[in-house]
Parts: sequence; structure tokens; C-alpha cells
Amino acid sequence: MQSVREDADYIIAEALKASLPDTAVKKALKEIPESNGKTVLIAVGKAAWQMAQAAWDELGNDISCGAVVTKYGHSKGKIGNLEIYEAGHPVSDDNTYIATSRCLELVSDLKKQDRVLFLLSGGGSALFEVPRVSPEENQSITKQLLASGADIVEINTIRKRLSKVKGGRFALLCKPAHVFTIVLSDIIGDPLDMIASGPAYPDSSTTQQALKIADKYNLILSEEAVKLLKEDTPKELDNVTTYVTGSVKQLCVSASESAEKLGYSPMFLTACLSCEAREAGSMLASIAKDHFYSNKSLAFIMGGETVVHLTGKGKGGRNQEIALSAAIGLNGLKNCAVFSVGSDGTDGPTDAAGGYIDSNTFENLKEKGIDISAVLKDNDAYNALKQSNGLIITGPTGTNVNDLSVLLIKK
Amino acid sequence: MQSVREDADYIIAEALKASLPDTAVKKALKEIPESNGKTVLIAVGKAAWQMAQAAWDELGNDISCGAVVTKYGHSKGKIGNLEIYEAGHPVSDDNTYIATSRCLELVSDLKKQDRVLFLLSGGGSALFEVPRVSPEENQSITKQLLASGADIVEINTIRKRLSKVKGGRFALLCKPAHVFTIVLSDIIGDPLDMIASGPAYPDSSTTQQALKIADKYNLILSEEAVKLLKEDTPKELDNVTTYVTGSVKQLCVSASESAEKLGYSPMFLTACLSCEAREAGSMLASIAKDHFYSNKSLAFIMGGETVVHLTGKGKGGRNQEIALSAAIGLNGLKNCAVFSVGSDGTDGPTDAAGGYIDSNTFENLKEKGIDISAVLKDNDAYNALKQSNGLIITGPTGTNVNDLSVLLIKK
Repeated sequence: MQSVREDADYIIAEALKASLPDTAVKKALKEIPESNGKTVLIAVGKAAWQMAQAAWDELGNDISCGAVVTKYGHSKGKIGNLEIYEAGHPVSDDNTYIATSRCLELVSDLKKQDRVLFLLSGGGSALFEVPRVSPEENQSITKQLLASGADIVEINTIRKRLSKVKGGRFALLCKPAHVFTIVLSDIIGDPLDMIASGPAYPDSSTTQQALKIADKYNLILSEEAVKLLKEDTPKELDNVTTYVTGSVKQLCVSASESAEKLGYSPMFLTACLSCEAREAGSMLASIAKDHFYSNKSLAFIMGGETVVHLTGKGKGGRNQEIALSAAIGLNGLKNCAVFSVGSDGTDGPTDAAGGYIDSNTFENLKEKGIDISAVLKDNDAYNALKQSNGLIITGPTGTNVNDLSVLLIKK
Repeated sequence: MQSVREDADYIIAEALKASLPDTAVKKALKEIPESNGKTVLIAVGKAAWQMAQAAWDELGNDISCGAVVTKYGHSKGKIGNLEIYEAGHPVSDDNTYIATSRCLELVSDLKKQDRVLFLLSGGGSALFEVPRVSPEENQSITKQLLASGADIVEINTIRKRLSKVKGGRFALLCKPAHVFTIVLSDIIGDPLDMIASGPAYPDSSTTQQALKIADKYNLILSEEAVKLLKEDTPKELDNVTTYVTGSVKQLCVSASESAEKLGYSPMFLTACLSCEAREAGSMLASIAKDHFYSNKSLAFIMGGETVVHLTGKGKGGRNQEIALSAAIGLNGLKNCAVFSVGSDGTDGPTDAAGGYIDSNTFENLKEKGIDISAVLKDNDAYNALKQSNGLIITGPTGTNVNDLSVLLIKK
């Protein structure tokens, strides 16, 4: 029988593989119907180059033309006939407007049988933008909003109305062609109208809200800007199909599938974990104690991004804390394990991606004179896990979709 | 359709009812096979009187004879022909030895067709004891162990060997009669050899361990005591059947059953929750966010005893904190609710048993100018929940089997 540690390593490797921009894009492309018209590729965001490369690998000359807009230093060279642009992030600059305008040219004059392949990743809000007011006024309004303490929903409600592409307007401009959006999400909960301010997603905010916000914060606005705030964003889009991929939820789904292949019954709990790391570990241990007597193998799966409130000066990361804090409760629960791993391959300021513990970890460390409670107090999970062979080392993975935490109960 | 709050109130009422010593004992008694011999009742612990009364209500004259040993002030009067003893707790005294010796007389000379009904509740370790060494030496050894910093497992390993009843020996003395033990457990995780030091449960500790502990702590022991440490405790008992009841797990089971009656698919997570209260609330909210789109009603059920690290001076309890801290995440998740309740009917220094929140709580409180994060920082959940009609008031319930926390997602 394969060991629980081997199971854990397999699940981690498969989940990370499925979350790579490459794999994620190629998988999503398989679901997109064929077309007998033109295919225009528009890739925007910090992972735009990788996503475009994957699409090019898959479709090649089926792509008629296209453009990639990514952050300075993020292009890795030529891809087929695609135009590659680098621009400012997190603050838009002239190159943003030049690149985005070119994208709008590429999708203009399309026909019904044509399609736009819109590849979207984090950073898109800054990288994909043509303001409808002057760049100067656009900047001034953003500054006013930030200074006034407006929250991100309020800021976006205003900005969507002052933009040619945000709040669903990009998709309108692509009409009558159909837009197939592949979103590589690193935002917990996947709010589609928030990622890059939703260029191809119906906008739920209203003009009334926008005017109320302008009033609330006494925004200084040109006549033109006030007029734009009164113009509504699209509430429905009939030419868009969206595939969310590479999200933390998919990390969990992939972990569930791999666990199932190994004979575990997977139980997905949440993909938006946000509590204190060690409390998540404690909870997984509590679940283990009550399901240990189950007659079948079980896998409890959580994803998200926990927090660590530092109380010590040791070395570690949130994933290592989740794992180590479960070790006390898992003591003696034969063939049970908890592991947690950051999908980008780094966890805190360490060379580990996360940590693994099982029913033997507590005794192992005790024999070496290591007291887990004291280690946690010092936030020194790294050194304790190193002693118990519990570090998970993957190196940089090329993806970043938050963390995966799993409890395995093997029968 | 019944409201989610009505569902919550129903689940709470049913779970508490099922956890009452009365209900729990009567339910367990129904599972015990009839006998054509004598029935001797021995009830030990802080809830011994209530348990014995319930058994008498159910069986009456089928009980041949019996004794009740409880803490001073815990007897509420005569029960049929049963002998009622009160004795020292948490420290045994002469009355303990007198009462326990009488119990041993009552179960001696029984025949194979006879049965012993052994009703056990918290406090049994002190209340049920006859030492095999002199009471003085017994006390001296306990004191030495406590002073040396021995842990509870080590202390029990020694004490079981110096006792006539602990570590399974009571059950041996009942032979050839069969012992039916009904345990009313208030210990998280129900370790049966720990409750009252397991008078009718096989002992897993060994003589080697006992001698090692005596050596480790340089215990001063009489020759007689050393001899007793070398005598093994029963490792198997073929005349015992144990029913654990009224435990926090049963509280969860009953909540699951009630939720199922109302159309929810119940998912039991753990009965030994022990993390920080607000983090448990955060986790339930995270689970809600990811299961909100389920097409069936779901109930996630946890039991246990969380902790609260005070950061403020407000009024509240751990259950109220669990509920309130879930309110941010549940905001707008229609027909979702989280409630948490202490089974004894009191939560912290308040008149509430716990708290209830749903998708409207966040907005309700916001309208009243109440910021949940600030309230939690001040540990003032009581006053916030009062404002949102979220206090659960039950009054004293007559049971104490830890807390029940539930997330409901109603479709």
C-alpha cells in the first residue's frame, strides 16, 4: 500500500499541475466550440504572456491576429503573429492606453461567425484601460476617491463608467462576435465583475449608485464626467461565455479528483478559507478525531488564504503553521495526515511550499525534545517540520492561486 | 415555508431535549436486553441522582436493589428502594469509601442471569473509590504525583492499580453478572477509560508503564504498593456493554436528525471543536460561501468547546462570538444562518445560551451604526446580537454536554 505521505505528494503534484496557466488554458480551450470565422486573441494581465503562449500552442494558425498586454518585464518574447505590449502596473500609463486601443481596433468590425478569445489574469484592471475622460481627469478622480476613503466597490462603480472597456463594455465592442473569456483567477471567491473590473462581464452597479458616491465624497468632476456617470453599463451580455480556471476552487477540485483516484471519498469544505492558520489546523485535527473510525478513506479539502498573527520570531509560513498545529490532535490517529501548501511554491519567507504532518509527527518531535506548542508560539514551524521530514518543497510552480489544505484519513 | 430562524430554534430545542440525563438514560435503557435475574443499579457521579431517578421511572420494581453515589448537596431525596450516598468531590473522603464499599457488596454474589445497571456521569473518579492501600498512602501517592508534574495519563496509570474499582476492576467484581454501563459524558472525545477512570472499561495501560512512572518521579511507595503496581489491570472484559449518551456527539447526532427532518442534508464535521471561537465562525462562513449555490438544503454541524481570548471588556460568550463572527461572511447569502449554543443554557457571563445570525444580520447592525469587527474586538457580542434579535435564550437546561454550532443553508 502506498503511504499517506505518497498520497499527499501525488495530490499536491496533480493539483499544482492542473492550476498551471498552461494546463488551465489548454483545458478550457477544449470546451470552446469551433468556429468557421476569424479568431482574435486578446490576452491581458500579469500571466497574459503564458496564457497566450498556451493558446498559441493549442490553436496556432487558427488564431487570425491578436495582442498581449502584460506588465513591464513579463513578456518572454515573440508568440506567432501576436503583438506583444508591456505597460504600467499597478498604475496605468500611456502604453496601457496605446495597447488597449490597439486591442479595440483588433476586435472592431468583426462578424457574427468570428470569435474573440479573451485571456484574463490578475493585474488586468490597470493593464487594460482606455478612459472616456482625459487621462489627467481619470487620474484625478481615482486620487480623489482613494483620498476620501471610498471602498473598492465604490471606486469600481465610478471607474467602470469612465472607461471604454471596464464593466462589460469591451464585450459590447466585440459584437456581433462572440467573446470566450478564460479567466485565470487568483482572487478568492472569483467575483467575475471584479477581476480586471469585468471587461466582458455584466455590471451589477447602477447609475444611481455612481451619482450617490460622487455626491458622498464631493468628487470634483468635469461636465463630461458627470454625463458619463449617468450612462449605464451593460446589465446583460448575450455574446459572452466565461470559463473561470486556475482558481483556488479548481485547486480544490483537482485535489478532490486526485484523492478520489487514490480511493478517498473527498469532502470539499471551502475555497475561501480566511481564518487564523493554526485554528484551521486545529479544526482539521478535530474533524480527524471524529471521522477516524469511519470505515472508508476520507479526504477533507479546503482552499483559501489564512492569516498568521506573529507572536514569535521563528521561521515559517501560514501553510506550515496549519500543518504543524494539527499535529497535536492527529497524534496516534494511524494513517491520518494533514498537509497544506501554497500554490506558488513558497510559504512565508522560507524555501518550502508548505508542511506535512501525520500521526507520528507529535511523538517524533517529542523524542527530539521539540514541544509543538512552544514552536507555534515562536512561529517556528519551519524548523520543527524540517526535523520531522514534514517540509514540502516544490520550488517555484509558475502559478499562484492561494493555498490548499487537506486532511487525509486512510483506511 | 418555515423561516430559517424557526428551523434553528427547532433544532436547538430537539438537541437539548435529547441531551437531558432523563431522556438520554431512558433512550439507552430501551436498548438493554431484558433479564430474568436480579437487576442491581449503581449510579455514580454528579448526575447520578437524576440518572437513577430516570431509570427508576422506567424500570421501577424491576430494580432489585441499588445505590446512588453523588456529590454533597446533589441528592434530591428518596428514589424507590435505592440507597442514596453523598460524598466528597473533587477529593474523595471516608463517605466515598463507605458508599463505594456498599456498592461492591451489592454486586457481589451475583449470578450469570443477573445484571448490573451502572449509571456513570462526571465526577466519578473521586466519588467511586476504594483504595487497595491505606487511604493515607493513597493520598500521599496522589500528592507526590501532582507535585512532580506527572500528567493525567500517568497519574491514572498509577491510580488504577491502587484502586479496587478503577481500570475495569469494578466490572470484574460484578462477574458472572453482565454490566450495562450508561455513560453520560461531558468529556470531549468520550475517552471511556478516562471517565471515572473506567470502572467498567478495559484498561490500556501496562504494569511496565506504571513501574516506569514510579521510577521517573521517584515515588515513595510501601512494599505493598509496589506489589500492586506489578499486578495487571483487566485488558479485556467480556461482561460489559457500554452506552455512551448525553455526550456532545449525541448533541450533534440529534441536531443532524432534526435538521434532516426539516429537509436539510446534514454534514457532521466534528464533536471535539476546540479552536478560537471567532475562527470557528469564520470557517462556517467560508463553508457557507462555497456551498451557497448548492441545489439542496445543507446543515453543517459541529460540537465541542471553543475558547475566547479576551481583547476587550464587552459582554458575551464563546457561542455568541462564533455566531457573530460568521455574520460578515454570511452577509447577503439568502436563507443562510449560523447559530451556536451552550447546552447548559448559559454562554459566558450572560443570560443567553448562545447566538443566531443570518444573511440580514450584517446590514441590520450596519444600519444601527454597529460595526461587527469593532464589536468582536471588544468581545461585546451580547449587545450586538441583542440589537439584531440574535440572542438565544433557553434558561438552565439541566444538561451540560458542551456546545453545538450549526450552519444552515436553506433552499
